[in-house]
Amino acid sequence: MSRYCNKKLKSMEGYIPGEQPKQENVIKLNTNENPYPPSQKIFDFLKNVSPESLRKYPDPLATKLRKKIAETYNLPGEEWTIVGNGMDDIISIAIRTFVDPEEEISATYPTYTLYEVLSQIHGIKFSYHELDENFELHPPYSWEKSKLVFITHPNAPSGVPVSPTTLREILDDDSKVFFLDEAYVDFADYNYLSWVLKYPNIIVGRTFSKSFSLAGIRLGFAVGNPELIKDMMKVKDSYNVNHITQMIGIIALENIEYSKANIERIKSTRKLLRENLIELGFTVPNSQSNFLLALWDKKPTAKEIYLLLKERNIFVRYFPHRRLENALRITVGTDEQSKILLENLRDILNH
Amino acid sequence: MSRYCNKKLKSMEGYIPGEQPKQENVIKLNTNENPYPPSQKIFDFLKNVSPESLRKYPDPLATKLRKKIAETYNLPGEEWTIVGNGMDDIISIAIRTFVDPEEEISATYPTYTLYEVLSQIHGIKFSYHELDENFELHPPYSWEKSKLVFITHPNAPSGVPVSPTTLREILDDDSKVFFLDEAYVDFADYNYLSWVLKYPNIIVGRTFSKSFSLAGIRLGFAVGNPELIKDMMKVKDSYNVNHITQMIGIIALENIEYSKANIERIKSTRKLLRENLIELGFTVPNSQSNFLLALWDKKPTAKEIYLLLKERNIFVRYFPHRRLENALRITVGTDEQSKILLENLRDILNH
Repeated sequence: MSRYCNKKLKSMEGYIPGEQPKQENVIKLNTNENPYPPSQKIFDFLKNVSPESLRKYPDPLATKLRKKIAETYNLPGEEWTIVGNGMDDIISIAIRTFVDPEEEISATYPTYTLYEVLSQIHGIKFSYHELDENFELHPPYSWEKSKLVFITHPNAPSGVPVSPTTLREILDDDSKVFFLDEAYVDFADYNYLSWVLKYPNIIVGRTFSKSFSLAGIRLGFAVGNPELIKDMMKVKDSYNVNHITQMIGIIALENIEYSKANIERIKSTRKLLRENLIELGFTVPNSQSNFLLALWDKKPTAKEIYLLLKERNIFVRYFPHRRLENALRITVGTDEQSKILLENLRDILNH
Repeated sequence: MSRYCNKKLKSMEGYIPGEQPKQENVIKLNTNENPYPPSQKIFDFLKNVSPESLRKYPDPLATKLRKKIAETYNLPGEEWTIVGNGMDDIISIAIRTFVDPEEEISATYPTYTLYEVLSQIHGIKFSYHELDENFELHPPYSWEKSKLVFITHPNAPSGVPVSPTTLREILDDDSKVFFLDEAYVDFADYNYLSWVLKYPNIIVGRTFSKSFSLAGIRLGFAVGNPELIKDMMKVKDSYNVNHITQMIGIIALENIEYSKANIERIKSTRKLLRENLIELGFTVPNSQSNFLLALWDKKPTAKEIYLLLKERNIFVRYFPHRRLENALRITVGTDEQSKILLENLRDILNH
C-alpha cells in the first residue's frame, strides 16, 4: 500500500479471480469456462484481419455489434443495448451511472463477490440480502435504501433460478434499478431478457464468456430501456470494446446454433455429474448454470477435498466465504472430465 | 436522461471522441492514428490463435506482457508496470486508486478533455492549471489542493514538451501523484519513463495506439514505483486486457524496430507539413507529437476551414473549446496525405 492510496482502498481486499494453473494437462473446473472451443468461423475471421482495422480506433458505439445483439434477442433496436469489456466493465458502468456517493448498493448473498468489491472501489455503501438455505429469494427485502440491486439469475454459486413471481414483485418497486446478472442464463430453462420491454427499472447483463466459449476476448453486454442505456453510454470509456472483440461477437451471434449445441451437451453432462455427486453423498442444488454447487459437511472437509483434488491436477473452486465453507463449486466440463473428477472423488472419499 | 441517472451525470457532457467517418477514401487526420500498418508479425500471430486461448480467461496479471514491457523499457521487473484496456482504462484506474471523494484532481489546460470527464464521472472536484500562450508550464501551480495531477508530455493538442527543469521542480512536491501522460512521447526528443526509478510520486502513461499503429486493439500501460502499481492492480478489472491484445502487445514490442522506422517517417512528414503550414500563414508550435496544432485567427475562421475540408472528405480536428477556437489539430499522416491536405488548404485560402 503506497502513501498515496486512497482511504477506501486501504481497508479493502481486491477481488480474487479463480486460479489459472500454469501447467498443461490439468482438469480445469474452477472458473466456469466452456469446455468446447468457440465457433471455427471466428478463426476464419482472425486469418483475415485487416491492417486498417487495427491501425484505426474501433467504432466507439459498436453499432454493428449492438444491431446484431438487438436482432438476435428480438429487441426493437441497438439503443436497447450497450457492450462492455466483459460483464465486469458493464457492472462498473452501472455503478458509476446510477449511484451517487451517498446512495447504497445491494446484492443477494451468496453471490459473485465482485459487486461488493466494485462498490467499495467506488466508495459506495454496500449490503447483502440473504438468500434462504435453498438459495432462493424471499421478502422482506433488505435493500430498501439501495439505489442499485444486483440479482443473479441463475444464482452463482448455486445455480438456483429466480422465479417469475418473485421477480415481478421485486420490479414493482420502481424507486431503484435492478441489475439482473444473467451471465449463466444460456444454461437455464428461462430468462428475463424480454422483461426490459415491460419494466423501465431492469437491466439484464449477459456475457460471451460462458455459453459462447469466449472468456478470452472479454465481451459482455447489457440490455435495458433506452433511457437507462443512454445514461450508461455516457459513462463507458469511449473505446471500451476493441475492434477484434466487436467482430468476434458478431460472428459468435451469427453462429449461435453452434453454441446452442454445446449448451445442450453441457446440460446433459450436468445432469449426469449431479446424479453422481448426489450418489457420493453431496447435496447438490438443481443448478441451471454450467456449474454445480456440491455441499459437503463431512470429513474430509470441502476445503480438504479441494486441496486433495488440486494435488491431482484437478481444479475446482473453493470459496473461503460465509455459507460456502462446506461447498465446492464445480464447473460442468465434458463427460470425460466428469468421469475423471468422479473417479478421483471416489478415491479421496474411499467409496 | 433516465430518472435513475445519478446527480453528478445530470450536469455532465460526455467525452466526444473524434469522428470516425463511414465513407471510404477519406483523408483522415483527425484522431492521431498512425498512417502505417502494424507489424506484419501481428497478422502472422492472428492466423494461429488457438481455440484454447479464447475459450479460457486471459491471464489476469498479464505477466508475460508486463515482463516484456519491463525488458523493453529497462525497468527492474514487471511489478513496475500495469496494463489497461487502452490508456483511458489506465487513467480511470489512477483516479479510482489515488483520489478520495473529498479530494481534487487537476490537469494542465488545454489538454485531453477526458481527465475532466472522468473526474466528473467519479464525482471528484476538478480544476485546470493554465499553460502559457506557448503551451508551456510555469509556476505558481494552481494544483496545490489536488491529490492527482495530469500533465501531458508532449502536450496535447499543441505537441509542446515539458522541460526537465520544470518537471523536476514539480515532482519535488511529494504530497500528490503526478500522472505524466506520454501517449505521444515516441514522436518526441526525450521522455521521462526512467524517472519512475527516482521519484515515488510519478506515473508515466503510455499507449500502443499511436506509435505502434494499434488503436484498434486497445492497449495502454502505466509505469511507476511498485507501491503505486500494486495499488492500481487492486483497482483494475481482473481481466481488463483480453488475450489477443496481450499477445499483440508482446509481438509489437518484439518488433519495435519496425515501429521506430515508421516514427522516423512521421517525424520527417511532420517537419515538411509544419513548414508548409507556416508558409500558408498558420502559427504552428514546434510539435513533438504525431499532430500539429495550426493556429489561425483570420478569415475564413478555423472552424470554417475545418468544415470546408470535411466537405472535401479531409478530416482534421476542430475543438469548440476555450483557447482552441482559432486552431485546427492536424494528425501527421503520410507525405501523400500532407500534399493533398496542403493543396486543398491552398485552394480554400486562395493561395
